[in-house]
Amino acid sequence: MAKKILLSYGSGGVMMHRFINDVIQKKFSNPLLDKLNDQSVFNIEKHRLAFSTDSYVVDPIFFPGGNIGDLAINGTINDLVMCGAKPLYLSVGFIIEEGFDIDSFEVIIDSMSNCAKKAGVNIITGDTKVVQSGKADKIFINTSGIGILENDLNISGDNAKPGDKVIISGTIGDHGMAVLTKREGIMIDSDIKSDTMALNRLVEKMLIHTDKIHAMRDPTRGGVATTLNEIANQSDVGITIYEKNLPIRENVKAACEMLGFDPLYVANEGKLIAFVEPDIAESLVEVMRSTDEGKDACIIGEVIKEYPKKVILKTSIGGSRVVSMLTGEQLPRIC
Amino acid sequence: MAKKILLSYGSGGVMMHRFINDVIQKKFSNPLLDKLNDQSVFNIEKHRLAFSTDSYVVDPIFFPGGNIGDLAINGTINDLVMCGAKPLYLSVGFIIEEGFDIDSFEVIIDSMSNCAKKAGVNIITGDTKVVQSGKADKIFINTSGIGILENDLNISGDNAKPGDKVIISGTIGDHGMAVLTKREGIMIDSDIKSDTMALNRLVEKMLIHTDKIHAMRDPTRGGVATTLNEIANQSDVGITIYEKNLPIRENVKAACEMLGFDPLYVANEGKLIAFVEPDIAESLVEVMRSTDEGKDACIIGEVIKEYPKKVILKTSIGGSRVVSMLTGEQLPRIC
Repeated sequence: MAKKILLSYGSGGVMMHRFINDVIQKKFSNPLLDKLNDQSVFNIEKHRLAFSTDSYVVDPIFFPGGNIGDLAINGTINDLVMCGAKPLYLSVGFIIEEGFDIDSFEVIIDSMSNCAKKAGVNIITGDTKVVQSGKADKIFINTSGIGILENDLNISGDNAKPGDKVIISGTIGDHGMAVLTKREGIMIDSDIKSDTMALNRLVEKMLIHTDKIHAMRDPTRGGVATTLNEIANQSDVGITIYEKNLPIRENVKAACEMLGFDPLYVANEGKLIAFVEPDIAESLVEVMRSTDEGKDACIIGEVIKEYPKKVILKTSIGGSRVVSMLTGEQLPRIC
Repeated sequence: MAKKILLSYGSGGVMMHRFINDVIQKKFSNPLLDKLNDQSVFNIEKHRLAFSTDSYVVDPIFFPGGNIGDLAINGTINDLVMCGAKPLYLSVGFIIEEGFDIDSFEVIIDSMSNCAKKAGVNIITGDTKVVQSGKADKIFINTSGIGILENDLNISGDNAKPGDKVIISGTIGDHGMAVLTKREGIMIDSDIKSDTMALNRLVEKMLIHTDKIHAMRDPTRGGVATTLNEIANQSDVGITIYEKNLPIRENVKAACEMLGFDPLYVANEGKLIAFVEPDIAESLVEVMRSTDEGKDACIIGEVIKEYPKKVILKTSIGGSRVVSMLTGEQLPRIC
């Protein structure tokens, strides 16, 4: 372990997982934390509640398709939703740099307010800190959230099973490429927008349709490749995905090719990956496609017994390769 | 309203209250948030739960008596406890500056782990972000917490009543002066230590003793003066306090005098102020004094009908003066 914190410890990838497991988790260890999901589920008598937290440090704070405020609300809602919970309440903690524009701040909290209303959740507690100019970068936002499980399902990263189909709710790489092109001032002759959105309405419909969802996760930092590797590890299964099935917008694909990024590792902020029993996969995709949030949903692969903890990509030209978790840091401060 | 965020918007005082009320609260408004307590209480069927959040940006991160990790755990526990809740679960969100020492980080999370164990709460979900060197100041920590109210009391900042006695659990100003003297490198010939500690065990004992507590709050940013003004405002009452009753350590008093601080405005991180029915005040103080956390507890004043929304200090020499909320910024980044 290096003696200094590296940027890659916040990447979402291998280095972050190692840092969290070796340094943080072993100190804080308890059965709920040790499940290593993006949310924790606990009981209050017969009620099952979900609790999640995320800090947002995206740079730039305004980007095509949204701003740090949208991410802060939608991101934490999505973390709650991925275990099948209905999001109820959010907290907001601001850390603001002295001298930050009030006008920009108001735009951000307007976005937060709108996203919360749209998703039907209330922000019920908060905190504001201000640090001296130069001691933070404009604004950082933490949101934590509480949700309730109105079902008795066990939708968890360690519950994917061989035979499960792997569904993605839409196109990949939009958010990461929107932030990157804005940050680097790259003018691309196309309109790449962040996909930031709350997925609670989509998941509500999915859960009405079926109780055969075993695991869900939103592929944010580290992208689809990293999320699939996390699930393969937690569930001790192999996962095969088909390159030709991966939904990618033409403009995102072009930008990735031009800039040398693999879209499988680029962050998404309004997508989910679901691991579901094979017999309901097709009909579930139809249900998802009937919604705005899931209109590009499709099956991208399946869970296998072979190659436990590995993700295998079947390429368009008929080959296979192992897709590992993100190593190093691809795009710092993407969310 | 200035067009830029000022340091004083994070002070805990008048400017922060104005900023929060005018800019944030009106956008996020809902009945639970609008109560403006340091925690929100919501129902899950017949269960009452409390939810709170705080970000910690203290500078320096290590100070006599504790570090940022102790504050992050104890502070959020205390916010939960102030409505009479039993703290159950915490989330932790780290924002770390690239290049920060792993050794220092480990000391901090050791402290967090120890404080959580001591208070009997579990950290069940978390998030880690890393930003580039120079984009944050070493480490910022957000903790959010969930507690349960195992009583049907309404302990709330808007519930103080004329006749109530005002009790403080111990000496004031310790935390603020410990951080300040460390930060400024002031060598004082005495050993001022932060009072950071969790107050859940103390409040448990208080609630076993009586159901006649109307309001409680921990006097952190802005100190005792600001907290009393908050309660006077929320409850629409006057509050009288007696200078001669205020418990202040000699070394803290000397440091305040030397450096020109009024201890009434200096932050505390292990103290509470309780507003209680007069007939149980004396016996409650006895109960508090039987604990480590409350061994210096005493009655410092009472709630009055006259002078609504004002705090009146009866001075040692027999005069009276209005004590207002903190204005401007006394000690930035005190927690």
